[in-house]
Amino acid sequence: MVQKTEHPHAPEFTKRDVGGDSLKRSVCDRCGFIDYQNPKVIVGSAIRHKNRILMCKRAIEPRIGYWTLPAGFLELHETAEEGAMREAQEEACAEIEIERLLAVYSVTHISQVQLIYKAHLVRPEIAPGPESQEVALMEWDEIPWTELAFPSVFWTLNYLREVWDTDDFTPFGNPPEGKYPFPVK
Amino acid sequence: MVQKTEHPHAPEFTKRDVGGDSLKRSVCDRCGFIDYQNPKVIVGSAIRHKNRILMCKRAIEPRIGYWTLPAGFLELHETAEEGAMREAQEEACAEIEIERLLAVYSVTHISQVQLIYKAHLVRPEIAPGPESQEVALMEWDEIPWTELAFPSVFWTLNYLREVWDTDDFTPFGNPPEGKYPFPVK
Repeated sequence: MVQKTEHPHAPEFTKRDVGGDSLKRSVCDRCGFIDYQNPKVIVGSAIRHKNRILMCKRAIEPRIGYWTLPAGFLELHETAEEGAMREAQEEACAEIEIERLLAVYSVTHISQVQLIYKAHLVRPEIAPGPESQEVALMEWDEIPWTELAFPSVFWTLNYLREVWDTDDFTPFGNPPEGKYPFPVK
Repeated sequence: MVQKTEHPHAPEFTKRDVGGDSLKRSVCDRCGFIDYQNPKVIVGSAIRHKNRILMCKRAIEPRIGYWTLPAGFLELHETAEEGAMREAQEEACAEIEIERLLAVYSVTHISQVQLIYKAHLVRPEIAPGPESQEVALMEWDEIPWTELAFPSVFWTLNYLREVWDTDDFTPFGNPPEGKYPFPVK
């Protein structure tokens, strides 16, 4: 799902101080409505089936044609786990079971918080949903490391490989400088 | 910070199907702008100093006069950890160091994802910020268990007590039915 967050015809909004707040906000000059803008939550999953990982080739921008994990915007009134399960269904027709939280990333330049779960397929059938050109269950040496859509996909796959055989891990976060440098321009 | 999310003077928006999306969205009849609404991220921390926990008595609605942990809305272009540190500064003039992720809650009826960190004070000085009537460093038997502002504060304190002496834990989530029933009406 692609999201636009700016209203193209909203010239009545100006940045102003509002009461009890440390930042200026967009306020409607006509009615005083305060248009708070906050980061969005992305929910997704690294889905295992035996010794393979579910990958999706993107059919939409951004990064059309590159490979990703099933993930997308959390919707109102959903739990994060429900959202991750829905995205796996929508993007790969995959029925999954969530195991535990694998990673939490802050992607500040696009104001996203990403919650990525470790999961597995409940049944082996998968198929591309409308946002995927292709879906595949890949072994480690089949993963297209230089054709991944986003740094957080690369980070997650690397971390998943580290904790493949254990549930005794703490969720990964943004990697320290120099760890898992994203190999794609 | 209190947030309003509905524009009171926006009669031009109606719920409609939009391309490539599973849900109806609010679309402006005049210009086609799609007003995506998504959950917001709350960032906060359970802050320790020796054998005590930092608590704040709320000076603002909702739940004015009840006790909480420093937490609030994540801002654009902040990391979750930066947001938790900012909220501790704003609400309790507290300088903290984040240790690790303690809990992730989905509060679906108000569409919030809450990320709560285990942290400690860097220096012992604290003072109420504009959103707090009072701040205090409390031992376990001083915590006002029946005057807590929100269920997630209650859950977090209970979980923190369980993992007080260890860093070998997985982040807590919404407790299973019947665990940590919130004792406040």
